[in-house]
Amino acid sequence: MIADCIEMDRLSSEIEELGNISEYPLPAVTRVLFSDADLRARAWFKERCLSADLSLHEDAIGNLFATWLGQDPDLEPVATGSHLDAIPNAGKYDGVVGVLGGLEAIRALKASGYVPRRSIVLIMFTAEEPTRFGVGCLGSRMMSGVMPLARAELLQDENGLGLNHWRGRAGHVSEMSDVLLDRGAFSSFVELHIEQGPKLEERGIDIGVVEKIAAPAAFRFHLTGAGGHAGAVLMPDRHDALLAGAEIALAVEKAAITSGSADTVATTGVFEVKPGAINSIPFAVKMEVDLRDTDMAARERAEKMILTQSADICTRRGIECSLETINSDEPAVCDANLVSLVEAKSLELGFSTQRMISRAYHDSLFMARLSPITMIFIPCFKGYSHRPDEYSSPEAIRKGVAVLAETLKSLSL
Amino acid sequence: MIADCIEMDRLSSEIEELGNISEYPLPAVTRVLFSDADLRARAWFKERCLSADLSLHEDAIGNLFATWLGQDPDLEPVATGSHLDAIPNAGKYDGVVGVLGGLEAIRALKASGYVPRRSIVLIMFTAEEPTRFGVGCLGSRMMSGVMPLARAELLQDENGLGLNHWRGRAGHVSEMSDVLLDRGAFSSFVELHIEQGPKLEERGIDIGVVEKIAAPAAFRFHLTGAGGHAGAVLMPDRHDALLAGAEIALAVEKAAITSGSADTVATTGVFEVKPGAINSIPFAVKMEVDLRDTDMAARERAEKMILTQSADICTRRGIECSLETINSDEPAVCDANLVSLVEAKSLELGFSTQRMISRAYHDSLFMARLSPITMIFIPCFKGYSHRPDEYSSPEAIRKGVAVLAETLKSLSL
Repeated sequence: MIADCIEMDRLSSEIEELGNISEYPLPAVTRVLFSDADLRARAWFKERCLSADLSLHEDAIGNLFATWLGQDPDLEPVATGSHLDAIPNAGKYDGVVGVLGGLEAIRALKASGYVPRRSIVLIMFTAEEPTRFGVGCLGSRMMSGVMPLARAELLQDENGLGLNHWRGRAGHVSEMSDVLLDRGAFSSFVELHIEQGPKLEERGIDIGVVEKIAAPAAFRFHLTGAGGHAGAVLMPDRHDALLAGAEIALAVEKAAITSGSADTVATTGVFEVKPGAINSIPFAVKMEVDLRDTDMAARERAEKMILTQSADICTRRGIECSLETINSDEPAVCDANLVSLVEAKSLELGFSTQRMISRAYHDSLFMARLSPITMIFIPCFKGYSHRPDEYSSPEAIRKGVAVLAETLKSLSL
Repeated sequence: MIADCIEMDRLSSEIEELGNISEYPLPAVTRVLFSDADLRARAWFKERCLSADLSLHEDAIGNLFATWLGQDPDLEPVATGSHLDAIPNAGKYDGVVGVLGGLEAIRALKASGYVPRRSIVLIMFTAEEPTRFGVGCLGSRMMSGVMPLARAELLQDENGLGLNHWRGRAGHVSEMSDVLLDRGAFSSFVELHIEQGPKLEERGIDIGVVEKIAAPAAFRFHLTGAGGHAGAVLMPDRHDALLAGAEIALAVEKAAITSGSADTVATTGVFEVKPGAINSIPFAVKMEVDLRDTDMAARERAEKMILTQSADICTRRGIECSLETINSDEPAVCDANLVSLVEAKSLELGFSTQRMISRAYHDSLFMARLSPITMIFIPCFKGYSHRPDEYSSPEAIRKGVAVLAETLKSLSL
């Protein structure tokens, strides 16, 4: 049996080892796109793939394809994968379970003696996290053509350094056009991931089978008021950008709570103040807001409320507001046959399943433009993610890898 | 006449030259304590003092004393001075007018042929601005003993580097105890400064004579909530530290507005969010709040309101709040004789005057513990300060220097 070929101790120690490749010490994991930690993680991961006898290809922005060549290499390959980058102060499972778990699934298939007809490709996507450039799923977004290359070349990080600077630093110098893949490039794509929500754990379910991925939208506000000495400018004379930002952040919260859908979530995750000195009135704030729902109508209601209220707040406070839509993505619907296949394989292995909606953002959202997709979710402790105490048990991971391996086998027969 | 010996072109070009010694290009000036820009500014200023034949002494934390030796060096000297450090994105006049203007006053007195009986000491104070360690007026605060040496040694910047690290880097290695001065160390102290408020300009007054300096208090909040993935945690399950901070910042504003005194000002100048990623719920916020009034009762009412409301907000949102008082200073009352002397000298020079209260924070506040003090204010454009468009005209500065020179002469006769 394939499941018996999964070496969970090896996988657990690899997860631990990778967690140590971080800008901050464990349990906090930080690997920002093309930072030293990210580059070291990539190098480490490539070694692991080579040890498993996979052949490697990297595109112009560092998306990594590790291929187990099938008996019929002319057929479109089956793909799996996820990401290894991590936001500041995150945990060691988000993305990692899909990449290292995908590698373990392939190693288990090999160990079981299986030989695939279609090639199986394990993808490590570049920058699923938006930390460097403010845009999530950069790798799959560009691969699928949702972000045109011309727009990608304009991306800048907070220091004004662009994608070309960073990919060059990482040694990726080929033409950017090689990133774009055709629809049908893969026969199917299945991503293994921690749930990042509490439902599976609460209900004692082994495997979540994803039917739909929520539609995220993201906005960036640049608020500009008037600075001045904190001791010298009287309260009625102020145009304090921080206070406008504070009101907007509270309006963002309210818009999510009153959208009419219990699933609407909205978060002000970035809030940067200038000059940021205790004795100086803040003259500028940069805010980034993330808004999601699977229900597009509710999301749009919340969005409208945020935009109307932020305009009112800024007018009242004499603050200039420039608003930029970072992304406004469509939800993705998973392939019904793949959903059924993952369910069937889980049941064969004796695992309980539940169909679910992913409210978190994944590369699968964009891979859905290229091929049929679904996702395999496993429980994680209290649903925690993007924090150092993020945790999935070895047993939960083992079950996810087993389902992934059986699914990849079926799809590559 | 002394006023005719003021070389305003020289002083203007020195102000410009010093403005260029900055971490950012003009018009934004940034010189944080013991940063490279601050060290270069100090070196440049020492050259200027030596060119004016002043003798130099530096204490263990870099307070610089440039002395014009009087005929009777056993008498307590007269002192003047201010600071050269600048918060991020500030202007080129705050502090600088008092230091370089003080130097010009001394040069004009020398050029006029005057020889003082008491020595005249020009002081450049270390870290009037709180940027590095979060505490304003560090130099004069330690000199006057308001901050004990043992507490100063515990100060840390945001990277955990202490005062001893930074003063060592700047080459100050003597015993810290040499910073402390005795009451009566100076016979009087007069500080020239831009008003940092709009009153003098609005009313067309040449010289503000300071009778009282407002009492500032400063607080630091550490808010700790729960992080998580922005897509995955539903709104009712959140403990978002940023939203608690937003409510507190608005409560701080309201406390100042409703204190019962029109002079109460309160500012949240520092607001730092962790992890600061768009797709992550903020789990921690560091806020620094500055609260001032000349009316201690109003300030205390506002403080009480801030503390009560922040506790309520944090309880309601399930946020842990730790609160630290950074400083809570007493107001300083200026010496009546010095105030009258500055007024008299201004009138002799044909300048209009107005007695006023300083709502901004100055080294004079702490020098008042060591000797009689007053301050000479000059108008600045719209009252702007701590911003790149801070401006005082050469004519306004010339008048301030003339009054300072005549005052120093009277005090050192």
